[in-house]
Amino acid sequence: MSVLAEPNRRLDADERRAQLVEAGLGLLESAPFDKIGAAEVARAAAVSKGLVFHYFPTTADLHVAVARAAAERLVGSLVTDPELPQERRLALGLEAFIAYIERAPAAYLAVSRGAGRNEGLLAVYEDARRAIVQLMVEALGYDDPPPALRIMLRGWNAMVEEAVLHWLADRPIPRERLVDLLKQAALDCVSAALAAEAAAA
Amino acid sequence: MSVLAEPNRRLDADERRAQLVEAGLGLLESAPFDKIGAAEVARAAAVSKGLVFHYFPTTADLHVAVARAAAERLVGSLVTDPELPQERRLALGLEAFIAYIERAPAAYLAVSRGAGRNEGLLAVYEDARRAIVQLMVEALGYDDPPPALRIMLRGWNAMVEEAVLHWLADRPIPRERLVDLLKQAALDCVSAALAAEAAAA
Repeated sequence: MSVLAEPNRRLDADERRAQLVEAGLGLLESAPFDKIGAAEVARAAAVSKGLVFHYFPTTADLHVAVARAAAERLVGSLVTDPELPQERRLALGLEAFIAYIERAPAAYLAVSRGAGRNEGLLAVYEDARRAIVQLMVEALGYDDPPPALRIMLRGWNAMVEEAVLHWLADRPIPRERLVDLLKQAALDCVSAALAAEAAAA
Repeated sequence: MSVLAEPNRRLDADERRAQLVEAGLGLLESAPFDKIGAAEVARAAAVSKGLVFHYFPTTADLHVAVARAAAERLVGSLVTDPELPQERRLALGLEAFIAYIERAPAAYLAVSRGAGRNEGLLAVYEDARRAIVQLMVEALGYDDPPPALRIMLRGWNAMVEEAVLHWLADRPIPRERLVDLLKQAALDCVSAALAAEAAAA
């Protein structure tokens, strides 16, 4: 149900903020991140530019809010059924990640490569990385994983992002093969990290 | 030999440009990338600010030139003796990469996370990634590697960057263990990619 469906209803502050972020997320699927400003969001949400400025005083504020919502949606899409076997969960997570980037690769690239642009975007990016690693850590049954495992999971996440973005340019191998290779890389990294920790203990 | 040693000698344009970039590189080891401007470079190179502006009309031009020089230095440091066994070359390359980032992690982070800030920086970052993958492709004996291998090598590069930056925060495992894990990940990715290509052929 879209909040846009009832333009005349008076929204409370949280709803209004969510509506504007939602409008920004919608724009992100067709416009580059840099081109999303208060004017575009106001138009998409059928509200005044002044109202957008009221909630997001600067373009950076707006970008951070939209990026955070996009990142939360991404992390949410990666949650898998804990009843499923781990390899299946890994494959489902990879498929969801690829589908997510595929929907708006330019937007993803803008956030990932542009994260250093401001502290807020960098925090969104770091939080998303941390949340994804946490999903994996929990799937592996750890509260507090050994450091080698955490480092390699961070690294594997970066590998997935880069491999998928690179693959998307011309999709030179079938999607299933990409998923298989990245799944295998995760299994290899996890077992190497655990073996290294066991040997060191 | 520093060009700064002879302040009164008249430098030709290329030498002068190189001197200014060199001064910028020096600053990068102690100051964040964002804080390096024409004034700082002029002071470090003992020249006028106007001269810096003559070669680098904008701060973005200066940043791109300094980042490119830093990236070229990084790629140069990763070249290893082709006579050595491949695993040894891989370990040496990883050690050089870690040493490079260790010297100025904030600067590396600024370029890698801030690459989306402008087209020039993004190009420097992409060119460096491409050059590093090319070093690996050549070490593996390929002119034109199969796509799965190229994708996984790109991914592995991103993994190394992320793992090293994450490790540097508190170095929770010994450096040799990090090198071993990343080396093992490369070997695993390469053999999985080649096996997938062989199965598909």
